[in-house]
Amino acid sequence: MKVAPAPEAFTADALQRWVAAVLATQGMDAAAATVGAKVMVRTSLRGIDTHGVSRLPGYVDRLASGEINPRAAPRFENHHGLLRCDGDGGLGQLVATAAIDRAMAQARSTAVVPCGIVHAGHLAALGTFVLTAAESGFFALLCQRTPPIMAMPGSRGPVIGNNPIAFAVPVPGQAPLVFDMAHSVVARGHVMQAQREGAQTIPGDWALGPDGRPTTDPALALKGAMQPMAGHKGLGLAMLVECLAGSLNGVIADPPGQATASLQGSAADVSAFLIVINPALAIGQDAFDVSIGAWMQAFRDGSGPGSRYPGQRQASCEAQRLADGIPIPAGLRAELRQLGARVGHPFDLLPL
Amino acid sequence: MKVAPAPEAFTADALQRWVAAVLATQGMDAAAATVGAKVMVRTSLRGIDTHGVSRLPGYVDRLASGEINPRAAPRFENHHGLLRCDGDGGLGQLVATAAIDRAMAQARSTAVVPCGIVHAGHLAALGTFVLTAAESGFFALLCQRTPPIMAMPGSRGPVIGNNPIAFAVPVPGQAPLVFDMAHSVVARGHVMQAQREGAQTIPGDWALGPDGRPTTDPALALKGAMQPMAGHKGLGLAMLVECLAGSLNGVIADPPGQATASLQGSAADVSAFLIVINPALAIGQDAFDVSIGAWMQAFRDGSGPGSRYPGQRQASCEAQRLADGIPIPAGLRAELRQLGARVGHPFDLLPL
Repeated sequence: MKVAPAPEAFTADALQRWVAAVLATQGMDAAAATVGAKVMVRTSLRGIDTHGVSRLPGYVDRLASGEINPRAAPRFENHHGLLRCDGDGGLGQLVATAAIDRAMAQARSTAVVPCGIVHAGHLAALGTFVLTAAESGFFALLCQRTPPIMAMPGSRGPVIGNNPIAFAVPVPGQAPLVFDMAHSVVARGHVMQAQREGAQTIPGDWALGPDGRPTTDPALALKGAMQPMAGHKGLGLAMLVECLAGSLNGVIADPPGQATASLQGSAADVSAFLIVINPALAIGQDAFDVSIGAWMQAFRDGSGPGSRYPGQRQASCEAQRLADGIPIPAGLRAELRQLGARVGHPFDLLPL
Repeated sequence: MKVAPAPEAFTADALQRWVAAVLATQGMDAAAATVGAKVMVRTSLRGIDTHGVSRLPGYVDRLASGEINPRAAPRFENHHGLLRCDGDGGLGQLVATAAIDRAMAQARSTAVVPCGIVHAGHLAALGTFVLTAAESGFFALLCQRTPPIMAMPGSRGPVIGNNPIAFAVPVPGQAPLVFDMAHSVVARGHVMQAQREGAQTIPGDWALGPDGRPTTDPALALKGAMQPMAGHKGLGLAMLVECLAGSLNGVIADPPGQATASLQGSAADVSAFLIVINPALAIGQDAFDVSIGAWMQAFRDGSGPGSRYPGQRQASCEAQRLADGIPIPAGLRAELRQLGARVGHPFDLLPL
């Protein structure tokens, strides 16, 4: 049995400066590169390693190929009280940050600010965006349409995206509640990982083979579709996101058969839907705080010892990684070194 | 083995007139009684028999006891663009209809209209309300806070409601998409039914006993809590509803231990959250219709033969029951006869 080399840890500040510098080599201006780097590093700080700094090499490829527009300047329109943010094909981290910032500004005078988002790169971890809104006192909800990847048993192939959704609220005196999920039983990445690691089987409720039947074979699963969590309930909720993040933005779904192709399609055609709510205007800050405090206290008292609410584990992880650095495993370190060499900005950070 | 007597069927019109007349005997004026009766009968027409006319005897009891206010006049306030509907303790069917109507009226000039609802009776089938909005061309979302009834394994008792959510959108040339679910694996009614019918066991993922462990014993389950669908995912989504329908309305949760008591508490303290969206203002009617049509076509083509989208089965049921009448089983018939005799308005409808 091989033992993986220990990860080395780097400070968030150093990583952020390096990520921003790398993005700048692809034509992003310094301010935009810093926004993108901040979101990626924050995501890594929170322990969501699959959606943080590890995504940088892919983004750089897409910036280099022109799939992501390095000079993107998100534009806003107001459609009878509904904001629409056209991301101009920019990095998802940049576009969603612009949308959250604009919606929060508007929520200083309007209780509920809805905002459609189009022409963005992949948003990665939705929770990171709503977290920043909650840290500013807002209740925020963000959902994203993805290409079809899910289906119920009996289907001929993927029929709808796993359409992730996240929300966050401030919790008085505590870390914000941050909840972030997709509607598949597990992420497709788990099946890919199982295959990569040579696993013979996956649990039978994860995926379907190309014949539409549940399969335990990771290779068949990757040719089929992921199963929705809770069956028809997960499917129906994914439809809600399709309506909000897709149809309210005028997105036209690919016909069946071309669905898989669009997984590899333009990286900057993502659409999403955001709602930012100002509790102070909606019900009054005190009333909201007392209500959140009461039900979360009841939740904690009733749950078992050591129970946590969504967001607490990530907040602990962030505190620890701010102190001890963000661990970067050997494989990713090698990737970042290659990337740094390729773009002329070496990954020469000193581990903590 | 006893064979249950065949249900007799009655026309929707006759049932609606009778239900309205019964509500009027409890002090509701004719117009309000008709609104309440329409919602109940429509719910029965759609095949949701657990939440339709079968609920009438319970509502009459609560009207008689004063728990529901027969003279309720829902009031509206505007909080910086967020509507709030104070239901004045009225029948949930009346209050939610008033809220939907007001939100739709406002959505003629505003793309997205959010509306908090407080002091309402139990709303019953949320899908019935959003359906009517979709039939008028709107995209509507409605969720309701319930008393705590759910928990994860390891909990000391219920920690959060099953917090149902429903949405509906118009589908060009087809029945509206209507999706309506609660966040428990199954409704608590299934456990009650299992116990009533003398079943020894229920599936182990339905509920927890009072010790917080999954149980297959319906009696223990009724002393414990229901399990959320999809584990932590269902729990987190129930928290989203708690924030929207509870905290944005300033609702204060009962401390643990009193939670079960509140299941029997005032019948007219329900809070909910509604969003009505006008696609024509949000993105343009054509763009919305084309988008909905495209992804639903892809969904149907990719799903197996005979697959349906949420709402289709209920639409078929409604067409059939409009033609053949609403079947009322013998047990419910007897209840309605007793009720009619008690309020001085006999259930003397002739079956079809």
